[in-house]
Amino acid sequence: MKRVLLILSVFLSCQLFAIEQMPELKWSLSYSSEKELSVEDPIAAIVPGAVQLDIARAKSYPSYMFSDNYKQYSWMEDLFYTYTTRFKKPVLSSSERLYFVSKGIDYQFEIYLNGEKLFYQEGMFTYVDLDLTDRLQTDNCLQILVYPVPKKQKTPIDRSQAAHVVKPAVSYGWDWHPRLVPLGIWDETYLEKREESHVDDLFVKYILSDNYDKADIELSVEGKALDNCSFAWTLKNAAGKKVLHKQGKLSDPSLLKEIVLENPELWWSHDHGMPYLYTSVFELKNKKGHTIQTVTQKIGFRRVRLVMNEGAWDEPEDFPKGRSVPPAQLELNGRKIFAKGTNWVNPEIFPGIITRERYRELIDLAVDANFNMFRVWGGGIVNKESFFELCDEKGILVWEEFPLSCNQYPDTPSYLSVLKQEATSIVKRLRKHPCIAMWCGGNELFNSWSLMTDQSLPLRLLNSVCLEYDPLTPYNPTSPLYGMAHGCYIFKYFDGREVFEAMNNAHQTAYTEFGMPGISPVEVLKQIIPEDQMFPPKPNTAWQDHHAFGAWTADTWLCSNILKEYFGEASSLEELIAQSQLMQCEGYKAIYEEARRQKPYCSMALNWCYNEPWPAAVNNSLVVYPSIPKPAFYAVSNACRPFCTSARLSKFVWNEDEEFFAEIWLLNDKYEKITPGKMHIKLQAGNDVVEILSWDAPAVEENTNLAGPTARFKLPRWDTDRFKLLIEIDGAPQYNSEYTLLYKPKPKPKKKGTATLNLNS
Amino acid sequence: MKRVLLILSVFLSCQLFAIEQMPELKWSLSYSSEKELSVEDPIAAIVPGAVQLDIARAKSYPSYMFSDNYKQYSWMEDLFYTYTTRFKKPVLSSSERLYFVSKGIDYQFEIYLNGEKLFYQEGMFTYVDLDLTDRLQTDNCLQILVYPVPKKQKTPIDRSQAAHVVKPAVSYGWDWHPRLVPLGIWDETYLEKREESHVDDLFVKYILSDNYDKADIELSVEGKALDNCSFAWTLKNAAGKKVLHKQGKLSDPSLLKEIVLENPELWWSHDHGMPYLYTSVFELKNKKGHTIQTVTQKIGFRRVRLVMNEGAWDEPEDFPKGRSVPPAQLELNGRKIFAKGTNWVNPEIFPGIITRERYRELIDLAVDANFNMFRVWGGGIVNKESFFELCDEKGILVWEEFPLSCNQYPDTPSYLSVLKQEATSIVKRLRKHPCIAMWCGGNELFNSWSLMTDQSLPLRLLNSVCLEYDPLTPYNPTSPLYGMAHGCYIFKYFDGREVFEAMNNAHQTAYTEFGMPGISPVEVLKQIIPEDQMFPPKPNTAWQDHHAFGAWTADTWLCSNILKEYFGEASSLEELIAQSQLMQCEGYKAIYEEARRQKPYCSMALNWCYNEPWPAAVNNSLVVYPSIPKPAFYAVSNACRPFCTSARLSKFVWNEDEEFFAEIWLLNDKYEKITPGKMHIKLQAGNDVVEILSWDAPAVEENTNLAGPTARFKLPRWDTDRFKLLIEIDGAPQYNSEYTLLYKPKPKPKKKGTATLNLNS
Repeated sequence: MKRVLLILSVFLSCQLFAIEQMPELKWSLSYSSEKELSVEDPIAAIVPGAVQLDIARAKSYPSYMFSDNYKQYSWMEDLFYTYTTRFKKPVLSSSERLYFVSKGIDYQFEIYLNGEKLFYQEGMFTYVDLDLTDRLQTDNCLQILVYPVPKKQKTPIDRSQAAHVVKPAVSYGWDWHPRLVPLGIWDETYLEKREESHVDDLFVKYILSDNYDKADIELSVEGKALDNCSFAWTLKNAAGKKVLHKQGKLSDPSLLKEIVLENPELWWSHDHGMPYLYTSVFELKNKKGHTIQTVTQKIGFRRVRLVMNEGAWDEPEDFPKGRSVPPAQLELNGRKIFAKGTNWVNPEIFPGIITRERYRELIDLAVDANFNMFRVWGGGIVNKESFFELCDEKGILVWEEFPLSCNQYPDTPSYLSVLKQEATSIVKRLRKHPCIAMWCGGNELFNSWSLMTDQSLPLRLLNSVCLEYDPLTPYNPTSPLYGMAHGCYIFKYFDGREVFEAMNNAHQTAYTEFGMPGISPVEVLKQIIPEDQMFPPKPNTAWQDHHAFGAWTADTWLCSNILKEYFGEASSLEELIAQSQLMQCEGYKAIYEEARRQKPYCSMALNWCYNEPWPAAVNNSLVVYPSIPKPAFYAVSNACRPFCTSARLSKFVWNEDEEFFAEIWLLNDKYEKITPGKMHIKLQAGNDVVEILSWDAPAVEENTNLAGPTARFKLPRWDTDRFKLLIEIDGAPQYNSEYTLLYKPKPKPKKKGTATLNLNS
Repeated sequence: MKRVLLILSVFLSCQLFAIEQMPELKWSLSYSSEKELSVEDPIAAIVPGAVQLDIARAKSYPSYMFSDNYKQYSWMEDLFYTYTTRFKKPVLSSSERLYFVSKGIDYQFEIYLNGEKLFYQEGMFTYVDLDLTDRLQTDNCLQILVYPVPKKQKTPIDRSQAAHVVKPAVSYGWDWHPRLVPLGIWDETYLEKREESHVDDLFVKYILSDNYDKADIELSVEGKALDNCSFAWTLKNAAGKKVLHKQGKLSDPSLLKEIVLENPELWWSHDHGMPYLYTSVFELKNKKGHTIQTVTQKIGFRRVRLVMNEGAWDEPEDFPKGRSVPPAQLELNGRKIFAKGTNWVNPEIFPGIITRERYRELIDLAVDANFNMFRVWGGGIVNKESFFELCDEKGILVWEEFPLSCNQYPDTPSYLSVLKQEATSIVKRLRKHPCIAMWCGGNELFNSWSLMTDQSLPLRLLNSVCLEYDPLTPYNPTSPLYGMAHGCYIFKYFDGREVFEAMNNAHQTAYTEFGMPGISPVEVLKQIIPEDQMFPPKPNTAWQDHHAFGAWTADTWLCSNILKEYFGEASSLEELIAQSQLMQCEGYKAIYEEARRQKPYCSMALNWCYNEPWPAAVNNSLVVYPSIPKPAFYAVSNACRPFCTSARLSKFVWNEDEEFFAEIWLLNDKYEKITPGKMHIKLQAGNDVVEILSWDAPAVEENTNLAGPTARFKLPRWDTDRFKLLIEIDGAPQYNSEYTLLYKPKPKPKKKGTATLNLNS
């Protein structure tokens, strides 16, 4: 059964000929509290989609994004759903078969044809691929019975209800995601005519030589009734020119291996070269030599490894002596790369409605942000094919997690068996994409809120599955590992340290999550918060439903106490938003740039998080739903320029008469030597600009940072509550940087009352 | 081929009936510098053994243990060896087959029958199991061509030459092992008549219910021509009483599973209960119902897990936050057990001559030492069956490492394929033993001297093999892991800290290696060191050949500088030995007892090392070759008593007028509450004894330590260079402890010269 389920992976990144897709199916949806095929009161269903969206459409529900409307959907969790479609038996030649294909049904389901149960599956990531031919009638009724939302227990009503299933835990509720658990058909689903002889899966496997001057290629072909078939395979370069050709009997295995591509163009992340893609065209031919199927897919040649971070072998020093930290340094085609990127989350609450276009907008923005890596966080889905196709094309590396997050997934045979099925499907599908830079078991599994350990069988199993199907791509059981770190997610930590102090004293190989909340733009707020609740933001209003209050811990994500401490009470929504967004900008810059300064020991900076599945009122995201950059997006984009100036700051608030100081750095992630020229370090308060240091910066070696002088200046009396540090380079403004800091004048001499420390006073 | 090679595991812990072992084979040995079957100048070979031992015997070499005689063996490394034996074809009935069986040939070899090459193998741990029947002549010549010692490179001549093979690295030279690399047949080897229908491997697999009240048993049977066979299976308890019986057709798989044993007696380590063993008797019957084979093996029912150490989930605290440490707390049948034990190394340089009796002596001593765990170190061999049988019987848990140690074993297909073959053989053989408590990839692989990481494919492969064949036994990739530690191995560390200070400030879940060198007894020294080199010990003499100088780093293992610093120059060999042995006793006590005091965060203390493969002049071992306990053995045995008193000391040397202090503790690893009674803390200097504290110790809860008062006393003037701390309990001397410390009187008032600080003055 497994093989049948897995065979469609080839169709994902390919065009098909001679396999005929049938007219689109029309679906209806019914539901029942019992486990039965229900046909009563059918409503129209859009496939792919979700049962909730169909019901909302049929019953004219208000948008789940506004206020607390999402709560109206909760009754939909516990029902059985029947999708029904009817179709006439098509004309089939003696060698043709009719298949029902679905790339994703969420989550546990049965499939019936004309009332007969043909199939059962638990798992939304393993494609359904059912040969219906022998059971077809003139008029056919195909039905899919979808089980209710799986819940490990009735209460608590939270992510732990998903601790026994391979279903994204995020939809059970998260500190930036409402409780809304999708069900139903969530990816392309159709009938398809195929020749009896057909290829189910084609994997163009390769090994690059040590010096990248050749690729040893092997074609791994899975399919049905291939015994008497022959093939013709062509590899074309990006210009469409044939560079390799092989043909012959499929039964001769020697023809499929030891195929050598000399001097392959390598696939690079966009910041280090071109994400070069070849095209593989595989034609299947029948006994008569007629082409009966063509499988076309993109191939990128690259080698990814996780190697030790520089300096990490020197630790630990003392006896009793432990181990050195695990490697977190990504190496692409032999080049050590600083991974600047972000944590990707589901771009929709209902994955069924994610389009290639949505992926494209977000991935294009990531390139603009100078990001070269997405960590696809394990709380969410494994994305649709178009996501990976676009990452291949745009040159973004993908750290791909399996759908395990913040739960104690069990060692039970039933869970392990579904996990093995799903992981095998996922790895066999995604290993074809050059963008896949590493596999990871899931999110924060080795922390006290998850309680999994290195001994947990699910993670040992995932290691084993990845080793079997994609041994040359790194595998990590979770993030963070030893030497890596997550957090914090606020500007001022619970122990009173500011982000500057905490980061400057941290010593990690990889910062794989860190956040900084910022309020969404006012136009977005207007779409989600009733006008009478808009200002000031209060708990237990739509602000809270959209994560401003009671989200993670303490005062998140609005962090009104922190904002008040730095800025005093805001007098308008616009002022509050500006305060919050400034903190988000400066906080994120502090982390990204300090992580970069800690290169080469440090090799990754991935913020939490990139995008969001619905418009949050406040979130750590850089891009508001659906794809609106926040000001912090541009700040981060600057902080991630391959070459840029940077200041190492020690704190946010500076006082009159205090000696301001900042270490001046040049950050170079490029593999070229750069001589930036004369630098001017200035402070600007209002219209006053003072140059506090000028420096003839020397050449900066490739992939190397350079610590320059510390600029110092005794702060005068200014009539302002903030000032800017400007770093400018003569003739190269593209390298300039600036930082906004707060300024506190000395209290005026006491008259009668007490001087106020309120900066807005 | 793999299946054929693996099938003998069942014969290891079993008696056989109806499989007839043939008369013993007589072997001869020849060698050649070419790869060819050589027959010139044959010498007698003893099998099992080693080619080196045969040559030494034939050529009357002096003992390799004396002085530097082992160097005379080095020419034997680079030759090809041919073992030859001749035998007449035995009478075989029509259903009988003749097999050649070898349980171990070291390392790479070919097998020939009557000049025809039948077989090739790389790997010494996969049994050879060759059906010779169809190629037999009346007179037969069986030959084994053994390749030279595998060497990754010519130089450096050290363990790194073994970095590409699944052969113990230790014999390539170690800081306690001479360079002597065995080759040849090293385990039982014979001809055997078998019925064509026979069982190759029987695995009695079980899963214990959560509360241990039943075992679900499944019989996994591998063999040949079993289609028409039936079976009868009986499980007997330790008293020989039948407790389960099943019989029927082997072709009915349902008969082999869902066999339930109610209320199984559990297997315990000797310190926590009885290592209870059942006996499984499996009879294979032919079509006529006649028993044609009986497989008898011992079964112990137990569950082992590695669970989180108490308190470990609370770490780390700060942001940016990493992961919690991996679990190192062994749980046996639901009971958390403090692992007190030791690192086991090869008990012979040539494993071919290890006998069950040698294993028994050493394992009996380990029980006397209150040890419940051996870490079988990955630098050495995977032991013969009798080792595991005895650990099963005596109740010693085994942490079993694969043969990888301190090298960067590669990701190459050729190495991975041999490793997979060998690991599969090892796991399928050893998983039948209840003593196996955990698998481990090998020794110190995640440190700078090995350069392997979590990404190394050999370690990912071992995870995968263990998961496939023995999923319920923990697997760790190496030791130390995060939270664990190795070392140090000297009394005074390189940074000047004494063992007391270093250990008291350490915070680890498991101390899985730590050493403390001690000189061997004088009788042993006389066997290995020429009389004229005996005293004082000097570098570049037999002392150095036997690891007194230039062994590990700095001044090891004699540590003459440390001895001199504490005791001054020794005037005789006996005095030097006494100094060294005192340091070994007190140093080891300090570590074992401090590790125990750190329970429950800490859960393991395993010293480096237990035994040794030849008589060392100085070594960290507790037992000198072949099985002579050092004084430190008894000190450690006391420190490991399940219940005992203990003192937490801060240093070794105390001064006149100084306030001596020691925390008094009660250590309880037993699962019973103990009320020890009245305690007396005394200091003894010469014949002076002074009680410095008496304490009515309260009850100590099960598996809990109790920190008592700190005893303090201002040290008077004594006419001695050492004193003892005595902890005595009224009426319970079995719990008493004592510690020897050094004493420094105040310098006498200066006369003309300067006062000496030499304690021996």
